[in-house]
Amino acid sequence: MRWWPASRRTGRRGAMPELEALKKEAALRAVTLVESGMRVGLGTGSTAKYAIEAIGERLASGDVRNVVGVATSDVSEALAREVGIPVEPLDPRPLDIAIDGADEIDPELNLIKGLGGALLREKLTEVQARRLVIIADHTKVVARLGEKAPVPVEIARFGFLSTIERLREVVPGGRLRQPGAQPYVTDNGNYIYDAQLPAQFGPAELERQLKGTLGVVETGFFLGMAEVAFVAAPEGVRELRR
Amino acid sequence: MRWWPASRRTGRRGAMPELEALKKEAALRAVTLVESGMRVGLGTGSTAKYAIEAIGERLASGDVRNVVGVATSDVSEALAREVGIPVEPLDPRPLDIAIDGADEIDPELNLIKGLGGALLREKLTEVQARRLVIIADHTKVVARLGEKAPVPVEIARFGFLSTIERLREVVPGGRLRQPGAQPYVTDNGNYIYDAQLPAQFGPAELERQLKGTLGVVETGFFLGMAEVAFVAAPEGVRELRR
Repeated sequence: MRWWPASRRTGRRGAMPELEALKKEAALRAVTLVESGMRVGLGTGSTAKYAIEAIGERLASGDVRNVVGVATSDVSEALAREVGIPVEPLDPRPLDIAIDGADEIDPELNLIKGLGGALLREKLTEVQARRLVIIADHTKVVARLGEKAPVPVEIARFGFLSTIERLREVVPGGRLRQPGAQPYVTDNGNYIYDAQLPAQFGPAELERQLKGTLGVVETGFFLGMAEVAFVAAPEGVRELRR
Repeated sequence: MRWWPASRRTGRRGAMPELEALKKEAALRAVTLVESGMRVGLGTGSTAKYAIEAIGERLASGDVRNVVGVATSDVSEALAREVGIPVEPLDPRPLDIAIDGADEIDPELNLIKGLGGALLREKLTEVQARRLVIIADHTKVVARLGEKAPVPVEIARFGFLSTIERLREVVPGGRLRQPGAQPYVTDNGNYIYDAQLPAQFGPAELERQLKGTLGVVETGFFLGMAEVAFVAAPEGVRELRR
């Protein structure tokens, strides 16, 4: 574990609520790893958006050049273009780095992701990154996955009620993500079931069971993928490694 | 194994090519199992279409009443409406019966399906049927799955080239289904990779590996699902059971 000097914190921008300032601080630390010529996986969500903005600033200032982004959602692609990052579609070439937030981070750097709704594209993109760098505020660090967050499970729309019944044989409960009158629809046209996790479980085995359930497209478990996490707390940015 | 009298064969309609006549014969045999009041899963493909037409005829003649169809594709739904079968969406209630074709049928009644491109909806629908009845001509019966047909694997469009690279670590080869200038798109907006099968494999283990591959939505293996298969050959219709 290493610390980033607290003097670099952005908390001094008093107008920003504290957690937002911490997210931005973690993002700025991660973006120092971006170098000229890199192909960078761009995450999705309220923390990743600070990283996208910061990469755009580094490109605009000439601090780095020829950086290309590969976006994990339509929203992130639009933001990247807005801040001046050229965006390419994912192809089979490896990415030099990917920077993204997480909903939970355990001591092994296993993650729960997908609260932002982009888990499938995030996973498909970030599995190709030579380095997956996670950025988060300190509230996302947990002793075991599922402590605070459900695990999002992307499911086919067709027959989704039956798929949910099958999922309830695997996990204690959960609910279809439905922010308004209609269920939330992912960029891939699927629904999300936010599954409660059992008190005791092996993440790899549970992921296998969930993904093996008919109707499931992908889960929000990101196991063994992250290389490093920058976690911002009021006392500074911690660097976590496996 | 039981035989259906050859006198009931439709081959006498001389204009129909022989395999088509056999497909229809198998379909007609299966449709005798449909009773008034049943909710029936309607398959997809060149054999299932004869079953849909025959159910429509039985409804039109008053031979059965109050039969409701649950369609496994947009094409089958359109045909069902055209022939007068009321169609309902899939909900979590069990279906009384489902009738569908298959690309390969092994001696355990394990199947390869999905050449018609509707494997996910077929699987989601047919897993809910109290009885899954398979209809086929005799060319679809094999000693082991993969003898003649590839197994279709439905994959997310996003990052599909990388998903195909991952699949090639599981199976010896295959190809993206692309009938014209663009890849084939399923009713769920995904692509199909037609995977060649290895010379020796355990279907359950291979299905687990394929479904567990990042980017895979579902496979065309239907294992342990079919109760009976009606297989039409020039000498009559055989009834295969596990």
